[in-house]
Amino acid sequence: MPTAIDTLKEKGRRLRIHSIRATTEAASGHPSSCLSAADLVSVIFFNEMRFDPKDPSNPNNDRFVLSKGHAAPLLYAAYAETGIISEKEVLSLRRLDSIYEGHPTPRIAWVDVATGSLGQGLSAGLGNALAARIDKLGYNTYVLLGDGECAEGAVWEAAAVAAYYKTSNLYAVVDVNGMGQSQHTMDRFDVDRFAAKFRAFGWFAVTVDGHNYDEIIGAFEKCRREGGDLPRVIVAKTFKGKGVSSLENREGWHGKPVPRQDLDKVLSELSQQFASDGFRPNPPQGPPATRDEAPIEITINRNLGDSVATREAYGDALVKIAEKSSRVVALDGDTKNSTFSEKLLKTHPERFFEMFIAEQNMVGVAAGLSARGKIPFVSTFAAFLTRAYDQIRMAGVSQSNVKFCGSHVGVSIGEDGPSQMGLEDIAMFRTIPGAVILYPCDAVSAERLVAEAARRHGICYIRSTRPKTPVLYSNNEPFPIGGSKVLRKSGNDRATVIGAGITVHEALAAASKLEAEGVSIRVIDAYSVKPIDAGTILGAAKETGGRIVVVEDHYAEGGLGDAVLDAVGHQARVVKLAIRDIPRSGPPEALLDQYGISSKQVVQAVKDLIKS
Amino acid sequence: MPTAIDTLKEKGRRLRIHSIRATTEAASGHPSSCLSAADLVSVIFFNEMRFDPKDPSNPNNDRFVLSKGHAAPLLYAAYAETGIISEKEVLSLRRLDSIYEGHPTPRIAWVDVATGSLGQGLSAGLGNALAARIDKLGYNTYVLLGDGECAEGAVWEAAAVAAYYKTSNLYAVVDVNGMGQSQHTMDRFDVDRFAAKFRAFGWFAVTVDGHNYDEIIGAFEKCRREGGDLPRVIVAKTFKGKGVSSLENREGWHGKPVPRQDLDKVLSELSQQFASDGFRPNPPQGPPATRDEAPIEITINRNLGDSVATREAYGDALVKIAEKSSRVVALDGDTKNSTFSEKLLKTHPERFFEMFIAEQNMVGVAAGLSARGKIPFVSTFAAFLTRAYDQIRMAGVSQSNVKFCGSHVGVSIGEDGPSQMGLEDIAMFRTIPGAVILYPCDAVSAERLVAEAARRHGICYIRSTRPKTPVLYSNNEPFPIGGSKVLRKSGNDRATVIGAGITVHEALAAASKLEAEGVSIRVIDAYSVKPIDAGTILGAAKETGGRIVVVEDHYAEGGLGDAVLDAVGHQARVVKLAIRDIPRSGPPEALLDQYGISSKQVVQAVKDLIKS
Repeated sequence: MPTAIDTLKEKGRRLRIHSIRATTEAASGHPSSCLSAADLVSVIFFNEMRFDPKDPSNPNNDRFVLSKGHAAPLLYAAYAETGIISEKEVLSLRRLDSIYEGHPTPRIAWVDVATGSLGQGLSAGLGNALAARIDKLGYNTYVLLGDGECAEGAVWEAAAVAAYYKTSNLYAVVDVNGMGQSQHTMDRFDVDRFAAKFRAFGWFAVTVDGHNYDEIIGAFEKCRREGGDLPRVIVAKTFKGKGVSSLENREGWHGKPVPRQDLDKVLSELSQQFASDGFRPNPPQGPPATRDEAPIEITINRNLGDSVATREAYGDALVKIAEKSSRVVALDGDTKNSTFSEKLLKTHPERFFEMFIAEQNMVGVAAGLSARGKIPFVSTFAAFLTRAYDQIRMAGVSQSNVKFCGSHVGVSIGEDGPSQMGLEDIAMFRTIPGAVILYPCDAVSAERLVAEAARRHGICYIRSTRPKTPVLYSNNEPFPIGGSKVLRKSGNDRATVIGAGITVHEALAAASKLEAEGVSIRVIDAYSVKPIDAGTILGAAKETGGRIVVVEDHYAEGGLGDAVLDAVGHQARVVKLAIRDIPRSGPPEALLDQYGISSKQVVQAVKDLIKS
Repeated sequence: MPTAIDTLKEKGRRLRIHSIRATTEAASGHPSSCLSAADLVSVIFFNEMRFDPKDPSNPNNDRFVLSKGHAAPLLYAAYAETGIISEKEVLSLRRLDSIYEGHPTPRIAWVDVATGSLGQGLSAGLGNALAARIDKLGYNTYVLLGDGECAEGAVWEAAAVAAYYKTSNLYAVVDVNGMGQSQHTMDRFDVDRFAAKFRAFGWFAVTVDGHNYDEIIGAFEKCRREGGDLPRVIVAKTFKGKGVSSLENREGWHGKPVPRQDLDKVLSELSQQFASDGFRPNPPQGPPATRDEAPIEITINRNLGDSVATREAYGDALVKIAEKSSRVVALDGDTKNSTFSEKLLKTHPERFFEMFIAEQNMVGVAAGLSARGKIPFVSTFAAFLTRAYDQIRMAGVSQSNVKFCGSHVGVSIGEDGPSQMGLEDIAMFRTIPGAVILYPCDAVSAERLVAEAARRHGICYIRSTRPKTPVLYSNNEPFPIGGSKVLRKSGNDRATVIGAGITVHEALAAASKLEAEGVSIRVIDAYSVKPIDAGTILGAAKETGGRIVVVEDHYAEGGLGDAVLDAVGHQARVVKLAIRDIPRSGPPEALLDQYGISSKQVVQAVKDLIKS
């Protein structure tokens, strides 16, 4: 049932008051960015959206993503005006003991993904929209963007993919207030140019005065009437600080609260009351949905010694876990025939999303899918995951349940050269609090670890390898997160060599060579890089003269070697064999040798360590 | 002078032959992606571009950027057909002893920036175009893009900014062959949609048949005639594998060479000769340019104890070095009033580029500027540099001379919350081979380190801090890269505390508290995080009982603590105080304490370490 226009205006007025009060109370924040969007949010929350304010987990609730995260007080104000939270909670903004942070995070039950790093919300919204399609649910997703953040390429990645998938359940609203943090935006108030860009990218676009309630309401109606199967965008011309004359469209007010001494004067401008007939939110529509909680257990059938690339085993495992759980979905950036995620496309096409060569949006969409209960597996070459580091970081802040697989790691990819080699991916994922990093060396461990990742809530990164490697483990071998495998052990081991992935095989070859010369070593497969198995490593160090060689196909900084150093500290001497220069093209074996991580160099490092 | 069309066709034929031969010889590579663009490259190299094939450093040479880097053999073929290199060199493709790598890198004198991570070339080309403007030189820049890579948001970041700056000296050519690696591209052969997107972003766009020489030549002429002050794009419909019937527009050939046994058959299809009247490249136009080699020395005037944010000192230093060297330019992503790069905008507006909220393009443009002899300083919040990790990584492969400044690092930014806190930036830059990481704790060291960064060729990262900190150093104190400062030292120090940036002040406060309790400690300012001053740290460890506490406003992984661990190994016990959870909003001091890096926790860590 449509809400009376005076009620919406009254809500807009109150959203402004909350936003100003909260930021003055916090003595920081972005009230002027809230005021430009207050009328848009009023219509979205109090006329458009259908949701149960008592149940944030209702699967039929329409979703709202505040892509311009710095307008967080406006979002909290909307919660207050919906009866979700109290005004007192809004006023706890930015306090250390409050979940109402400077930018929204999922510490609040109603927030799906953290925002505040600009230009990411549309991807998350697209993830919601695709989840609705998978689940055949009728909810819509509304994403409020700032105009400044539309300079971010990720917005246009999301726009293109949304049009490709014809997500007509996705509404973007762009708050064109013409001002960035430090100056006017690139396109200032040119709403027609924004609309033209979206149209060229395949959207249905309407432009409005973002402070005119008739126009805003009419634009949503027009989208529903004429939008067809296109995603829809409302481009709204607004003014920063609208409603308060001292702030309205004035420079120098970005990120600045109204000083406490001016508060009464400013609020007096907002004292005009509109007739309001009360507000009841539109209830969510659709059948109840239940979450698939089936256990994800897989069986493996490999033969010891067979040559199989771990990237191919990743694809096999993806199919197996997808058969166990309807929550598993996969996304790839036009590398599915290299990462082998295409195996899932072949068996479960409705749960595979080609995201094209646009990694930022791919990760953002995965965060959105995760927020709607999916277990998304994102794959591409490991090197190209660096493209989405900001989105990965924010998925961490969002406590998203996204799994990543980076293939083609290290110099072992061979001739394609450094641009294609993932050599910093472990360092990148190690910085994400709580993230798990798994690095299988054979097909059995690869499959097991994919299942482990699916079962674990949170960010998991799986590192897969391009060349084939022999199967080392029996089919029932368990690979718990945080564990490791001791592959060679004797009573008189002189040193411990720790590898992961391809270097496990170099370490084993080195052990054989050394054995032939009468030197025994311990060999550990550190398949769980984070958390690292400190106990086993420390124990091995003690039993092998406090000598450790770590060998990894990754740069020397931030990788397995640093993880081992952190685990053992002063309790062992650690020699790190890792890539220390920008590599070049060449055959894989030659590159392993050239950059110092082949079995030959492991042998030498062990000998040097024993001698020294 | 225009080249005869038959000569261009003959060049196109020969480019195809080289591309096929080289990839078959290498037994890997992307010949089909070369063939789609062969005719475009023929016209660009042999009709459009003006350059001296004997002098890659001629400042008036037109520039060419192969954004679709996997077509590297085509580029090398063009070099061969221009007389720059021999055919034998083309055939050394992808060998370990060859600079003709799988994807182009600046190991080749004619290559400005490494490509191969898709969607970055247009940014580099825009950097070239802006450099031409600064230097008042008349060269043009030509960027060849694939259609698949246009899904990358960075392409649209570059497109928007190029239009904003009206870079009519920038020509993009999109090779729309409709096929990606794993399937058709998003927009297949819809050249009109590509053109519409570019037009909406403010470009002059022409569509052509990319295998029709008259049309291609005509399109360039039309751009010159009608393009006005807009950047120009030619959108060309092509076929992957064009010219070889077994490859042409067929799936399954991406990244696959012609098998050796089929080579003769394939080449026979390309045996038809065109009449050719020989080829002389168009010479470069314009006056000779000389590079400003003036030494970059600055003087500093601070008062000990004054409170100044290092981010503000960064801005001051930027102005000083810009006055010394015309090569210094600055770019910012709409945070210039926070990073203080706006100081350069005020004094040298012609050398400041507002890049809006689009960090990937900003870094790509900087790499392009660097390739043309500029010393670009790129600034934004450190957290948002993660957005451009792939571009930073590629700038490393390119051996670019780009300087980065990340402001607002760590929990010490306070209320804005985790999305705005740079907590992984050190880990990120540590992985770049040869990169330097500098982290000043006061205004004097900040200024000095900016000048050091400007003088040093290569990637340098400067970490600046939001809150004000007291000036600790006298104006003439030197801060060499790789050094450190011992701030507290006595004959009976019981432990060494290593900090950087804001934690230097926490370490000093801890030293005073401990001193009051009769415990002396050594305090080191590790302003050079990479390279780290291992000598001083090891010496201090030896003199202080082998006890080290590292305290840093960064995640525990990959930061200063790991750098110190790597330097000392088993020779000291290292306790790392760092951020281990996703932080939240709150006052800076409260957050330092909450997340375990305040002076209080330093005191406790030292006491625990001494006791244990």
